[in-house]
Amino acid sequence: MRMINWKDGTITTPDQTKLPLQEVTLEIKTVEQMAEAIKTLRIRGAPLLGAAAGFGVAIAAYNSKANTPTQLIADLEAAGTLIKNQRPTAVNLFWGVDRVLNKAKSLKGTIEELRNAVILEAQLIADEDVAQNHAIGKIGSVLIADGDTILTHCNAGELATVEYGTALGVIRAASEAGKKINVIANETRPLLQGARLTTYELKRDGIPVTLITDNMTAHVMSKGLVDKVIVGADRIVQNAVFNKIGTYGVAVLAHEHNIPFYVAAPKSTFDLTSKADDILIEERNPQEVTHIGCQQTAPEGINVYNPAFDATPLKYVSGIICETQIYYPPDYPTFRQGKI
Amino acid sequence: MRMINWKDGTITTPDQTKLPLQEVTLEIKTVEQMAEAIKTLRIRGAPLLGAAAGFGVAIAAYNSKANTPTQLIADLEAAGTLIKNQRPTAVNLFWGVDRVLNKAKSLKGTIEELRNAVILEAQLIADEDVAQNHAIGKIGSVLIADGDTILTHCNAGELATVEYGTALGVIRAASEAGKKINVIANETRPLLQGARLTTYELKRDGIPVTLITDNMTAHVMSKGLVDKVIVGADRIVQNAVFNKIGTYGVAVLAHEHNIPFYVAAPKSTFDLTSKADDILIEERNPQEVTHIGCQQTAPEGINVYNPAFDATPLKYVSGIICETQIYYPPDYPTFRQGKI
Repeated sequence: MRMINWKDGTITTPDQTKLPLQEVTLEIKTVEQMAEAIKTLRIRGAPLLGAAAGFGVAIAAYNSKANTPTQLIADLEAAGTLIKNQRPTAVNLFWGVDRVLNKAKSLKGTIEELRNAVILEAQLIADEDVAQNHAIGKIGSVLIADGDTILTHCNAGELATVEYGTALGVIRAASEAGKKINVIANETRPLLQGARLTTYELKRDGIPVTLITDNMTAHVMSKGLVDKVIVGADRIVQNAVFNKIGTYGVAVLAHEHNIPFYVAAPKSTFDLTSKADDILIEERNPQEVTHIGCQQTAPEGINVYNPAFDATPLKYVSGIICETQIYYPPDYPTFRQGKI
Repeated sequence: MRMINWKDGTITTPDQTKLPLQEVTLEIKTVEQMAEAIKTLRIRGAPLLGAAAGFGVAIAAYNSKANTPTQLIADLEAAGTLIKNQRPTAVNLFWGVDRVLNKAKSLKGTIEELRNAVILEAQLIADEDVAQNHAIGKIGSVLIADGDTILTHCNAGELATVEYGTALGVIRAASEAGKKINVIANETRPLLQGARLTTYELKRDGIPVTLITDNMTAHVMSKGLVDKVIVGADRIVQNAVFNKIGTYGVAVLAHEHNIPFYVAAPKSTFDLTSKADDILIEERNPQEVTHIGCQQTAPEGINVYNPAFDATPLKYVSGIICETQIYYPPDYPTFRQGKI
């Protein structure tokens, strides 16, 4: 099922903050609405953010009152800057904006031709993401054995992409190939993408899933209940994988228990010109930690630290599954030279 | 401040499920009320459970309609069995019941003399716990340097004991000795004892505390933000420390980051006749994971695993602080022989 759709200047996508209790479709008609949806995680997941970024620039093109191509490009750049400023860590946001902007800048033509090219490029990003996720799934599924129990953190599923998912795409592909798979989903505090989204989409697809709190990961590993870990990524740099907060801990625990730890992500997530220390980790509102929905859980005014991502050094990563191949540790030195 | 008090057959104690938003005092007048309070974690924390268990038997003595000492002992045994059946993992519950029961059984005398002896023994357990916690604090505080940031999991504070706390007793003693201490509190899902209780009592005492979600532990360690870890214990066996779910993961992460990991617990927590595999780990209601207070967080009917404790092998433990001394790894072989 497509998670993001464009029709005549309107983008429709599920409001992921409302799931699983309410299935609400967002209608986004302005760049400001898109920026708000990204900021508040109504739209989230690295590959989906790439597509949303492209569509955000496309909305600017659709709505622009520019009289000249130069004015249109200026409008698109303003939209791109607004979108990029919503979240600092996931590279796909920058990648999606830049890809569409660069397309527009590379063309000569009328305003109408530029506008159409921008919208087409955004749609192309979305279509390519679908194809990439299916490729990731197919390539990664060879790693999965019949009967495996796979632990995952956060949601790198259909809801994090345009369709099919990355980490959950691998699980889906293995399941479609007839392998019996069980999934253990970390709830993924503070925003509970595992509890809310991963369980929701796996249950819908009939793939057995068991929900645990994040601090049960070590225990289930020590009891021999986990065969493999697969997670997504928000940015892969020369020496580390950035992903949802908690991923690094899962990787260390997998390493300690000799459990393979795989990352599934499209190449648009790769940022091999950067190192871990170069990357700003987004810190979010303390209220995400002190409250859960309507429920306050901590005393008023307590000090909170709320980083949204962490960095997993490549030494803890058994393989990186992308749309063309699986990179294993012997290839990682290439990452460190900033190329693949 | 005393967390549990006895007066004329009535036990008063804070309802810990209501903290930090409401400060409600429970009045317990029957064994059934005590059993319910233990089951639902209105009363929790291993040392406090030891005292509550003793007082639970004392209530039975106070309320008994027995006409003979034998009938009274039978009433006390029934009360003890009910109390022990509420939670299977924390050894202090069994220890508290047995200590008071054995006292009664060892005496010859009138019903009134037995009754008074039982009540006195329960009060003695509580008084001893206070003294032990202050001793643990004083002994453990030598491990803490001025300026340390200490990470703790769950609540091993005043609210887990009769007074002062075990892990937080060590932090309190270091603070009272003039050392400047910062605490990082894991929120401790599912029941959020860290977010609700540890932050509450440290804030009240003016000890700086920062709240994180459990899956941020690895990240704060990797950033060099943690100097030491101190936690409590629910049962210490020959080869492992049982404590609140998530403790084992914290210990592995501390080990990976070369951060000392200490356990603070009175000797009533020691069960050196058992090994880790002998111990039943309590599994609690799935709703604790799928809901947080009024807030449902996961889809209806999803499969859940909800173990309340985990086992940390002694190889991850840098020292065990009890009321008489600190046991370091060279002493652990003694544990393995079932004696101290």
